[in-house]
This record gives sequence, structure tokens and C-alpha cells, in this order.
Amino acid sequence: MLTTAHIDRVVAAALDEDAPWGDLTSAYLLPADAVASAALVAREAGVFSGGEVFAAAFRLTDPAVQVRLHLDDGASFREGDTLATVSGPARSVLTAERIGLNFVQRMSGVATLTRRFVDEVTHTGARIADTRKTTPGLRALERHAVRSGGGHNHRFSLSDAVMAKDNHLAVLVASHPSLTPSAAITQSLQAAIARLPHTTHVEVEVDRLDQIDAVLAAGVDTIMLDNFTVDDLRRGVERVAGRATVEASGGVSLATVRAIAETGVDVIAVGALTHSAPALDLGLDMRVELADGS
Amino acid sequence: MLTTAHIDRVVAAALDEDAPWGDLTSAYLLPADAVASAALVAREAGVFSGGEVFAAAFRLTDPAVQVRLHLDDGASFREGDTLATVSGPARSVLTAERIGLNFVQRMSGVATLTRRFVDEVTHTGARIADTRKTTPGLRALERHAVRSGGGHNHRFSLSDAVMAKDNHLAVLVASHPSLTPSAAITQSLQAAIARLPHTTHVEVEVDRLDQIDAVLAAGVDTIMLDNFTVDDLRRGVERVAGRATVEASGGVSLATVRAIAETGVDVIAVGALTHSAPALDLGLDMRVELADGS
Amino acid sequence: MLTTAHIDRVVAAALDEDAPWGDLTSAYLLPADAVASAALVAREAGVFSGGEVFAAAFRLTDPAVQVRLHLDDGASFREGDTLATVSGPARSVLTAERIGLNFVQRMSGVATLTRRFVDEVTHTGARIADTRKTTPGLRALERHAVRSGGGHNHRFSLSDAVMAKDNHLAVLVASHPSLTPSAAITQSLQAAIARLPHTTHVEVEVDRLDQIDAVLAAGVDTIMLDNFTVDDLRRGVERVAGRATVEASGGVSLATVRAIAETGVDVIAVGALTHSAPALDLGLDMRVELADGS
Amino acid sequence: MLTTAHIDRVVAAALDEDAPWGDLTSAYLLPADAVASAALVAREAGVFSGGEVFAAAFRLTDPAVQVRLHLDDGASFREGDTLATVSGPARSVLTAERIGLNFVQRMSGVATLTRRFVDEVTHTGARIADTRKTTPGLRALERHAVRSGGGHNHRFSLSDAVMAKDNHLAVLVASHPSLTPSAAITQSLQAAIARLPHTTHVEVEVDRLDQIDAVLAAGVDTIMLDNFTVDDLRRGVERVAGRATVEASGGVSLATVRAIAETGVDVIAVGALTHSAPALDLGLDMRVELADGS
Amino acid sequence: MLTTAHIDRVVAAALDEDAPWGDLTSAYLLPADAVASAALVAREAGVFSGGEVFAAAFRLTDPAVQVRLHLDDGASFREGDTLATVSGPARSVLTAERIGLNFVQRMSGVATLTRRFVDEVTHTGARIADTRKTTPGLRALERHAVRSGGGHNHRFSLSDAVMAKDNHLAVLVASHPSLTPSAAITQSLQAAIARLPHTTHVEVEVDRLDQIDAVLAAGVDTIMLDNFTVDDLRRGVERVAGRATVEASGGVSLATVRAIAETGVDVIAVGALTHSAPALDLGLDMRVELADGS
Amino acid sequence: MLTTAHIDRVVAAALDEDAPWGDLTSAYLLPADAVASAALVAREAGVFSGGEVFAAAFRLTDPAVQVRLHLDDGASFREGDTLATVSGPARSVLTAERIGLNFVQRMSGVATLTRRFVDEVTHTGARIADTRKTTPGLRALERHAVRSGGGHNHRFSLSDAVMAKDNHLAVLVASHPSLTPSAAITQSLQAAIARLPHTTHVEVEVDRLDQIDAVLAAGVDTIMLDNFTVDDLRRGVERVAGRATVEASGGVSLATVRAIAETGVDVIAVGALTHSAPALDLGLDMRVELADGS
Repeated sequence: MLTTAHIDRVVAAALDEDAPWGDLTSAYLLPADAVASAALVAREAGVFSGGEVFAAAFRLTDPAVQVRLHLDDGASFREGDTLATVSGPARSVLTAERIGLNFVQRMSGVATLTRRFVDEVTHTGARIADTRKTTPGLRALERHAVRSGGGHNHRFSLSDAVMAKDNHLAVLVASHPSLTPSAAITQSLQAAIARLPHTTHVEVEVDRLDQIDAVLAAGVDTIMLDNFTVDDLRRGVERVAGRATVEASGGVSLATVRAIAETGVDVIAVGALTHSAPALDLGLDMRVELADGS
Repeated sequence: MLTTAHIDRVVAAALDEDAPWGDLTSAYLLPADAVASAALVAREAGVFSGGEVFAAAFRLTDPAVQVRLHLDDGASFREGDTLATVSGPARSVLTAERIGLNFVQRMSGVATLTRRFVDEVTHTGARIADTRKTTPGLRALERHAVRSGGGHNHRFSLSDAVMAKDNHLAVLVASHPSLTPSAAITQSLQAAIARLPHTTHVEVEVDRLDQIDAVLAAGVDTIMLDNFTVDDLRRGVERVAGRATVEASGGVSLATVRAIAETGVDVIAVGALTHSAPALDLGLDMRVELADGS
Repeated sequence: MLTTAHIDRVVAAALDEDAPWGDLTSAYLLPADAVASAALVAREAGVFSGGEVFAAAFRLTDPAVQVRLHLDDGASFREGDTLATVSGPARSVLTAERIGLNFVQRMSGVATLTRRFVDEVTHTGARIADTRKTTPGLRALERHAVRSGGGHNHRFSLSDAVMAKDNHLAVLVASHPSLTPSAAITQSLQAAIARLPHTTHVEVEVDRLDQIDAVLAAGVDTIMLDNFTVDDLRRGVERVAGRATVEASGGVSLATVRAIAETGVDVIAVGALTHSAPALDLGLDMRVELADGS
Repeated sequence: MLTTAHIDRVVAAALDEDAPWGDLTSAYLLPADAVASAALVAREAGVFSGGEVFAAAFRLTDPAVQVRLHLDDGASFREGDTLATVSGPARSVLTAERIGLNFVQRMSGVATLTRRFVDEVTHTGARIADTRKTTPGLRALERHAVRSGGGHNHRFSLSDAVMAKDNHLAVLVASHPSLTPSAAITQSLQAAIARLPHTTHVEVEVDRLDQIDAVLAAGVDTIMLDNFTVDDLRRGVERVAGRATVEASGGVSLATVRAIAETGVDVIAVGALTHSAPALDLGLDMRVELADGS
Repeated sequence: MLTTAHIDRVVAAALDEDAPWGDLTSAYLLPADAVASAALVAREAGVFSGGEVFAAAFRLTDPAVQVRLHLDDGASFREGDTLATVSGPARSVLTAERIGLNFVQRMSGVATLTRRFVDEVTHTGARIADTRKTTPGLRALERHAVRSGGGHNHRFSLSDAVMAKDNHLAVLVASHPSLTPSAAITQSLQAAIARLPHTTHVEVEVDRLDQIDAVLAAGVDTIMLDNFTVDDLRRGVERVAGRATVEASGGVSLATVRAIAETGVDVIAVGALTHSAPALDLGLDMRVELADGS
Repeated sequence: MLTTAHIDRVVAAALDEDAPWGDLTSAYLLPADAVASAALVAREAGVFSGGEVFAAAFRLTDPAVQVRLHLDDGASFREGDTLATVSGPARSVLTAERIGLNFVQRMSGVATLTRRFVDEVTHTGARIADTRKTTPGLRALERHAVRSGGGHNHRFSLSDAVMAKDNHLAVLVASHPSLTPSAAITQSLQAAIARLPHTTHVEVEVDRLDQIDAVLAAGVDTIMLDNFTVDDLRRGVERVAGRATVEASGGVSLATVRAIAETGVDVIAVGALTHSAPALDLGLDMRVELADGS
């Protein structure tokens, strides 16, 4: 769902960062006519993501390198599986290797962690969603990786949905000293909704159960219950009673996500999907061919 | 050690990624004249890094926002400490918040993890070094964060040192079918060293103890022992016997790093410093002021 | 609601486009020490938009030029009103003049046309909304101008809301040959909604009244009635009966918008706001001062 | 006459603006294997411009999409004509559609309006010329569109010809208090011409007939008569008497251009060509094909 | 005459090229609190150019560094003169030094060489002009430097004047097989002039005296006599007889330029001004101050 | 050793600089269907460099142009040799000509000058190395050209090796007022080396023989003898006695380089290679073909 233009722009910048003056090792050590093929091999099981980005790293280093992807993004693989094959001039293959791997390891790492969260909650109706805690410059790729893992995307940026958090509500309350806090929040939200694009989803974060009614009164689309205990999440779901989507956020881990999902919340936001996913261990195994074909 | 121009370029791109059409929540919900101050507060202990980058996020959103840093990069802090204060138009403060946090959380996360590794080995002569497994586009910032944590930088890119790995050696051996593998490696390395910039450090990765002599014979600067057991690392250090710097790499974790360091290696490369450091939990606590100063 | 970084990037590119080798006329004709002040004067009445962008054109040409804005974006003005004053080196003022004017004339043109549409429908509940028919590279600025004029923004890009049009529905029908067209559409939409981000608003375009039920059955948020007669719009509003937001689109002009609004639709999309708004006639009137202050 | 590199840079930026996170509608609603062909069809008659730019929108979204242009830029077409055909993955075709259309509609709109002006004056020797009132970032494309319409380009930027306007002359007069206004203008222009690149055309705007002699005395190439009545234009042409090119500017519309041309002026500058041309109504009609070829 | 935005863009890119990961020497070797002042000193006499660019190198490295320029661009200086002073953190001063010097040395080198050519011909009416043989990416700066040296700019790019060279004429002749070469050239030039922007200067290169008439017949503005002997240049000037500007080009050096100028040509194009000017020897002399002010 | 992405970025920027609005001469003068082939011919003997860059200039102007390189970078050629052939639409060939030539002339000029220096010293063990005195934006290309000429690269940037110069040492001495200058230098260097990346080569410049011991005591890798006489260079080599690499710098010319090399230094840094190499005289000779193949 990403354009070629977007992928190429991000990958070209990464290559220039990693080889501003070229790759000394390849250029000085390897014969110019050595040809190599290489297999992208999984050193651990996981979920694949970033195939097109991996391929672009080689193409933008040297159009003479060919990449064939064996899996679609989103496919699972086991340790030892071959995910892609690369062939071309040995120098170019090795120059592009690390950047290709950096992207596909990171993206597959995000996809794989996402899948683990998703697998914990499939028996419930809850969806696992990402957050804006992404790597600067790579958000589109990381969001793609979350989808590869079966997760759902949350709003992409500050520009495509409203998310009013505690800090916003604090400003609202302070700015309307003549109103009760509840009234300040309800009235401000209503006024905003009247002016926002009609396509804008409005989500509001609450810290306590007793804030829910003021928010619901404004007609918001989603209520986010921030850092609630499992018991309070359950009470929150009951209180909302279907009048809005319910999102749980804060302190979600693989150890807690199942219990959270079983409270009946609709969405579970997990910042760790993108800000703390370990890169997946994928490697490039070379097979060298001599220039004379032997 | 980074230029203002570099920081501004990276941060401006991140802001445009996160608010391509502006921040709907701030713009529609908050009064234009609300003024806020906010404290960057540590929700967990750690090592600070990225202060200038954090400040740039606010300055490039709105020059009317002021940021004061309380700590220098590299300073330790405890849970609850205030690391910086921000003040200005409430809308702008909240628009820049997430990007400012994304950078400083990531960078402080890298610094903090680095410090933990460093603390494990201070009784030895070993240094903890980063790798090229960095986030595309952010390598300069992440390398800075490693330094903030007391770690050492490894080569920055493919362009500033030679690192011959197993794949390179495989190409060399295959390209010289008339030579023994050892001779192919030694001669190729010698030929490269004769042509490389005289400022280029040459490092070669070996997988087995019996490869060390062929590499040393070429006069390399550093030998990297890849995925060696602790016992083999000790044997490797003995075999090198001071003729080159010895670097350990592969499978290094907080659980293993102390034993690795005690083998006598000089450098321990830890990819996890940058590719898997969890973002540190830092938050922005708002204090709202009314426009009339109350 | 736009960041300084965004405005500066767009304006700097425009300056480099207009003066790749500098401004020959100013540089060769005017004395280096001539100082000028200038007034941005309205040659026709309108609605102001783009003040910060206008100011940036001068600041990025020469920081010695000062700009003072007399109006906030969104304010109305009459023919002859002074909207801003500029002062500094005469050469720099005249170099930046056209780019500053190009932006503010375009943005104020959009704001003014928007206001005319808005004024036609204020007695109804309908909102005037823009479309994606914006100038490549300037969408954020043009959307800001629509807001200045009292209009509402529609989705900003392909990434922040679903808008299924006739071409999409044609693909859906053709891709499910075993289903009736209605069933193909309903089921496909339901499947998409289940996987879309929960913050994504879903809008579907219909060309005929009898398509409405199939779309509503899928639970969409907005139905867009494309190129309907006024009578059919009224029938469409009745048929939807509050189950979704109703948007009218196609062939909307100042001559027709009032009747369209009075049918009870919620949103009226007007591509002309951005793709065909004439630039507003604003001019820069100079007052020259001699360097010796006389 | 534009390079592929230029077109690709502008179009890639537009795609990233319109689909920063991809196209939700295509990606979530359409089957991955649906293939479509589409025709670019004229909903109104006009002059074609922007074919290569239109094609680039699809190619940079997905190289698997093929575009075939049926007309050269500059060709006329009637309502209902097919201008180009597009075929490839349905998702990609629909993702690129709006950006492709935005460019070709804008450019063909400029070309068509230009042609209307040109048609009014073909019986005279006058040429229709554009101005610097172009869209920031798109000047090269819009100037190309003017040429497609049979118009002539004026200077491209501040850097390729001198155009001294009323504001410049006011600075000159004020800067030479010891000279008469006429002498100040003549002498300043002569001094500039002596230093300007010998390839630089010098054009000066006058507001009154009695300014002509002072300007001609300096040896300028073109005199621009700004906002003159038709009668005064005729008198101006007589006064210049072939000693310079004569350009009319200000208040030119389709209603007035013929009479202006018949005064004998050489060039008529029309800002509306680029700043106010309505986008032409072109649409993309889809024909869907199933993946199995049926 | 260059905008701040242009200078900053070029200098920021140069800084990122020279210090992608910062300046190791300054950062590791110098105390953070060392303060330094430095003088830009001429190691040889010359003409100054690039003052603002020099200053930008320091400002974009660290806004805490102050630069004061002692000379305006275009001023002459002697060996030993101080051209500018710089003060601020020692680390930042030394990080920016080389980039600042690279620009000012190159620009002053161009200005100085230009002045030498200009000085040879001041007794004639001939002007020294640059060419398009500039450094990719730096043309605007190098053209500014030519002006600093008292030279004149030629056309800036392919877009602002016509220059028909031997290769163009060869295409014309071959494309009109039914015409004589002279007629092919005359008619083609006339047709082009009729369609070119009226502000476009038309220059044609001839290789032989007998080509002059065909070119003049078309009404061109400048005739360029390419690689003519001094005697033939004189004959060419006579033959043109004031009907066009006459430019000499090819094989111009400091040894030959005086004789060329004395033939009566109007313009002498010297590619060497920008493609082969040696960098001027300017150095930065440091004065270190201790942080405690001693 | 440069990536396609890097070359394309630099060349596309150069094309946009040289033809911001296209090439007027080609577009207005040449028939659209004229086809041409052209030969890149050496007007003087030299060493080839920049073949891929030359080809990119044509490809990025118009993919229909084909370029075939006859020589590899680094090959020598004689006056009159054909280095490459180009064929395609005549307009596009002529539009790209100057940019293609600018790059290949500059790069081959650097390569050729480098080869002349190298040829002077081949009987010694000394290597000719470049410096950071490169053209802003083109360093990677110019360093490639030095390699084409048989020269060696020095450090690429401030980020990949330490080079402590007189200004750095002055700061060190002033910052340690309680130490002798020698001790300040030795201790500061030792402290830096302990913290620098282990891959960082440390080079220190000395101005006098008596500084050598203090620097060697710190364990640096290279000593640079700056502006030494030939006799002092010989004494310096003796004093270092193999304990570090010895580099000579300052005042190196073709007239002096042989004597310098014969002193026994290891490296000779020559700024002139990149900052003052004259562009090589290469030209494009056209052969025109008619569209009908005749």
C-alpha cells in the first residue's frame, strides 16, 4: 500500500547514510567480477514484512542485482526458512546487505511482535493497535509492519484523528474557570466536533471511571481508558455500554494483554509494537560464483 | 558534536511526518491564547540523551516556545526527576510533544541500555561498542546516544573502516581457487591494505580459532571473534597475543557481557544497543496558565 | 496550525524557484542602501489567509526585512484596507514581493471564495467542505485557507479516511461475480470496516437512490450522493433518515449551493474552493526612504 | 522540454503528500489481484497538456501500471474523447488516479484557457504571454501548459530578465533627489544595462504615456504599458514607434483581449492564464478485469 | 543578491557532507568549555567573495559562534589582511572551519581570477563573462563570485537565453536536406525567434567568417565567434558592423585576452573563471581563550 | 563504489540547476523527431573518470537516450580518442550535454592531475593522497576521481579520522596552563585515544621537528609534517623511525613532489588534486541522423 516513490526515497536516504563514500570493504577487498547469490535466511521464526523495501536496497545500490521474494508480507516462517534470494555482483550485494537487513529485520521484528500480541487475543473481539510512538522518518514502514503482523493501525498522525489526552483536558478545564470541569470538557468537545472535519474520529482519554459520562455526553467516538486496572476496565466497558468504542492503553504487555482483552474492550493500544520491538534475527547467506561460471 | 543544521533537518522531517496537516486536537480543542508550561519528567531512572533534539522539536513547531534543559546529555537521573521545562502557547507545546518525546525517549533509551552494559564491564579493560544496526536516518543521533551512555562508537558507516566478514572471506576464497583458503585471505587482505586510505582501520571477522593466524599475517588492526564461546574467546585473546585489537561479537546480552569482558577482549560489539533498546518512559507533565496570567 | 518548519520548507522552495540566481532587477537597478516600507493593500474585498506564509517569504529572503501583520487569518477586509506592512532594504523587499503575494493572493482567494459559499448556506445546517483537488505541494496551505474562509476540511489525503467511489464499487462488483452487486458491495464494505483502523471514517459514493440501502447495510459513516438533482438529494436525505451523514457532491456552484443546502444534506463538497479559486487582487504599495533618513 | 528528473521529483512529492500512509480505500476494499484498465476521458472539450506528468503519477506509484498517451501535449480534443489509457493492478490505478488527474486537469486547464486567449488575437500580431503569477513549485509545469495552449512564455523568474515596475521606479526617483524623475530613471536604467549580462532583456513598466520617452532614452528592449485604456494603448504604440517591443498588461480578460490586441501591441501579459485557470474536467473511467482474465 | 534560504540550503548540505557523524577531533580532543576567536587571514592578495556564505557555515554549525565580516564582497585585499573574525566555542569554530574556508577560498579564487582578466581589458569596451562550466550545485555562488571580481554574467542556464552552437546548427542543416545550409540556418532561427519568449536573447555561435551573414539575416542578438584567430576576430567585428553584439570564445587566457579585447569584440567568454580557478589561500588563525577568561 | 542512488541524486540536482525551465535552444530550434548520435572525444590526453555519472546525465534527462562507455574509469586515453557514444533524440542529447560534460571533465581533470603526481613518485614508497579541500556536494565524486588517477584517499570527513592541527594543539596548550606544552599535548592525545572509536586513526600535525616526540609519546598513528623543508622532512622521517606513518603536507606541487617523496615519507597530501585541478578538455561531437533514417 506504499508507493514505489515513498519506498525509494526512504531507502535511498538510508544508503547514503550508510555508504556516503562507498563501501570500502567490498571495493578494496573483492574482485570486481565476482558474482554472488545470497539467501535471506531466518535465524528465528517470525512474520515477514518489508520485502519490497529489502529489494529496493539492492536495486538502488546497483540495478544489476536481482532480488526474488519467496514470501508475501504477513506470511509466517520458521527458523531456517529462506525468505528471499539475491544475486548479482558480489560487491554490490555486500554493500546493500546491511541496509536491506536493517529494514527487513526491523519491519519483521515489528510484525512478529504484533503477531504475538494478536495471538493472545484472537478469542476475544479486541484488536491490537499501534501508536504514534514510531521511529521518526519510518512511520509508514512501521505501520505497514504492524498490518503484516495482523495488528490494526491507530490514527497515523496528529492530522487524521482527534485524541484528547489528560494534558488537553487540563488546558480545557483551566481555560474555563467559570465552569465545572465536567462541563468544561463536555462543552469544549462539542464545540470542537461541530467544527472538525466530518471525517474526523474523536477519541478522548480518561483516567478515572467518573470522567466517562462527561466525555460521552459530548458524543465522542472512542473513549480511551488510560492505565486502568483490569477490574476498572471491565467497569468502564459496562459504563460505556456500547455508546462508544472502548480502547485500553497503558502498561500493556504480553503478560497482561489477554486479561485486558477479556474485559470486553474493543481496542488495545500497544506502544511497544513499534518503539520496543527487537529486530528479528535474519541473515544473508552467500553463495559465491566465479566470474567464469565455475 | 552534531551540527544544528543536522538536528534541524532530522527534526523538521519528523514534524512534517507527524503533523502533515497540523494537529487537529490542539487546533480545534484548545483556546488560541492558552499558555502552558510543562515538565519533562522521568517515569523511570535512566541516562539522559537528546536534549538539543528535544528542544528543536518545539522550536521548529513554534519559535514562541521556550525550552530549558536541566541536564546535560550523559547525566543520570532518577524516577521523578525533571529533565527539562517547556513553556509557551499550549497548542504548540502539545503539537510538538510526541515528536520531542519520541526522540528523547529513544535516545535516552539507547543511552540507558548502553550504561547498563558499560556498568557490567568497568572492572575490565573492555569497551562496549555499537554497530551499524541502527535506525535508518537516525544513525548520527543513536551514535550520540551511545556516547551519552558511556559506550564507544564503532565504525560509523561502510565508508570509514574495513570490516571483512564471513561473506567477504567466502568471496575471496572462491575467487582464488588456486590458493589455499588461508593464503587467499592473507594475500587479499595485504593487497587491500596497500591500497586503502592510510587512515582506514582494518578489521576482520573470524569464526574459528584456526583462522586467526592467516588474518594476523596480513597485518590487520582488529580481529573480531564472532559467536565464540567464552572459553574460545579466552583462547583467541591468547592466540592474538597483543598483535591486534580483539573484538567479541555475537550473542552478547546483559547476562553474558561480564563473562565475555573478563576473557580479556578489548571491544564488545552489542547490536542491541541501537536495534533493540526499549524507549525510556519519559513524560510531559503540563501546568496550564490562563492567558490573563491567573 | 501549521508548523514553522512546514511553512519555511514550502516558502524556501518557492523562493529558489523564483530567484535561482537572484533578482536581476533589484540587484542591478536599486541602490544597495535604499530602504523601503511597503503596505500590503487590498485591491478588492475579501477574507485574509496566509499571513505567516507572506511573512516567511521576506524573512527567508533577508532576515533584515520586518513584517507586521494587521489582520489574523480569517478576518474580512474591504477594498483599500492595509493588511500588513513590510520594511527593510528595498532590494530585498522587492525580491520577495511576488512570492509573498503569490502565496497570500492564492490563500486569500481560496478563503474568500469559501466564505461566499459558506454565506449562502449559513441558514441551513450544511457545511461547505473542500476536496483533494488541491495544488500539488500546497495542500496544507490551501486547507488552512479553506478554514480561514469558514469552510470545513474534508479528509486530507488517501490515508485518513475511506472514500469508496464508483470506480471502487465497480471493481468490487466485478471481483465477486457470484454475488449480486448489492451483496458484493455490502459484504466488501463490512469486511473492510472490520480491518480498518477504528479511527477511520468510511464514506461511500452512490450514483443512484437505490444504491443507498446496500451501503447503509454495511454500517458506513457517510453517504455521498454524487451528481444528484436537488429533488433526488431531498429523497436521499429522507432515505438515509439519519443513519449516516449525507454529503452532496458534483456540480456545486454559487448558483446552486443554496438549493442543495436546503435539501437537508450535512456536507457539501466543493472542489472549486481549491482547484478554481481566482487569486485575490492584493498589491504591495511602496514608500521609499532614503538611506539618510530623509 | 522538461527533464524526466524534474517531472519525477515534482510528482513523487505530490504522491507522498496525497498518500503519506498509503491509500486506505484501495488497500482495504479492493482485492490484491484485481486488474483494471481505465480511460482518461474528456468531460469537456479542451487542449491537452501534461501527458508525461500524468504517466509519471502511475509509474511512481507502481511500475506495474502501464500508461499509453493518445494525444501529444498541445492537441485539441472534444468532450468524450479518450486522451490516455491506463492498465494494471486496480489498487495502484486508483491510488494514483487523483494525483494524475490533479496535474493533467490543472495543466490542461491552463492550456485550454490560453488557447481561448490566443484564438481571440490570431488575426493580429500580438502574442499572449504568461506571468510569474504561477503556483509555487509548479512554475515549470504551468509554463509548459501555456506553451501547449499556443501561448508564449514571459521571463521565467527574477533571474532571467529585468522587469522594472512602478515600485522600482519609485525607489530610483527617491534615491536621486537631485535629478528630475525622468533623468533619474533614464540614468539609472542606462547604468544597469551597462552592467547586466549582455543576454538580459530589459523591460520597464510605465503607468502614463509621458513616461515613455524617459524609458526609451535608456535603450530598453520592451516597454510595458500597465493598465492603459485601449485608446492610450494605441497612443502608446504610436509613441514607441517601433523603438521597443510594446507589452500590454493589467485587466486583460477574454472580453477585452481582442480590442487590446488590435491596438498594435506586441505582447499581452495575462496573469489569469496560470493564477486563475479553472481545472479542466477530465475523468478516469474504469474497466475492471478479473484476475482470471474473465 | 542571493536569498538567505538559498545560502543556508547549500551550506547545510556541505556541513552534513563534511561531518555526517560530527567532528571527532574537536569533540574528543578539545575541552567543551574552551572558547576561541579566530581571524580569517589572507595568505595571498586577492578579491573577496563569499562573506555571507562563510558566516553561514559557522551559524549553521552552532548559533553560538559569531562572525564579523571586515570586507564587502568585491573588495580587494593584500596578503596578511584580516578579512573576518570568528568567535565562540572552540569546538564549533574548528568544526566549521574547513567548510567555511572551502566556500570562501573557492569564491574568492573565482573573484580574483576574474579581476585579473578584467584588469587586462579595462582600456577596451570588452566585458569578461563567465560560462555554464560551473561546479554542479554551486552555480549561483560562483556566478556571484564572478560579479565580485568585476566580471559579467553570461546566461545562467539553458532556460534563460538561446545559445545555438555548432552541434545545433549541424542538426538544423541535416534536418532540412532540401535547403542550402545557410538557408536552413536562417529560416530555422527566424522560426524559433517568432515563438521564443520575447525576453529571450538569441545568440549563435559561428566557426567561420562566412557563416556570419546567414546568422545575421535571422535577426539574432549576439554572434559568438568561436576559436577565431585575433585577425579573424577583427574581421568578424567589421563584418557584423554593429548589427549584433559580438562575443569571442575559445582559448582565452590571461596571455591572450588583451589582444582579443583589442579587436573590438563586446564580450569575451572565459570558462576558466569557474572551471579552473585555483582556490585562494586563506587561513583561519586561532586565538584561544580559557573558559575562565584568562 | 558509489551507489546508483547517490549518483542519481547529485546528477538530478545538477540538471534542475542547469535547465530549471528546460532547454530553450533545443526545444525551439531543433525538430522534435531529429535523432542524433554523438561521441565523447578527448581534446587532450588524460585519465578517464566519471563514466557512470556522464551516463546518468542523459538517462535522467530522457530515458530514450542510450550511452555506451568505451573505457573504464581509471583508463588512460590519448587526444582524439572516443571515450563514450551517446544516441537518441537530438533535443535530449543536447540538453544533457553540458551537465554530462561538466561532471566528466571535472572528474577526469582530477584523475589526470592525480596521475601526474603519482607518476612522479612511483619509484618511491610514497602515496599521493587527497584532502578535504573538495567541492561542496561533490566530495564522493571527486574522491572517486582521485582513485581513478591512482591516488589514495585520505580521511573522507571530520567523522572518520582524527586530524589534530596547529589550531587544535593551540587550544590544548592554552587549556592546560599548569602543564608544559608537550605534556598538555601528550596527555590530551592519550585521553582522546582512550575514548575514541577503536577504528579511528589518529593523525597529528606538527610544525617543528621538536614537536614529534610529544606526539609520538601519545601513540598516534600518523604524524603529519606540515610545511617542512625537504631536509627537515628527511630529519622527521629519521626521528619518527617507523613508529608512525609519516605524512608530508603543504606546498606540494608537481615541481616539488618528487623530492618530497624521496625523503622517505609515506604519504603526501595534495590539496590541489581537488581544489585546483583544471577541467579536462573533452567534447561531444555530434552526428545527426534524420528521422527517416537517412
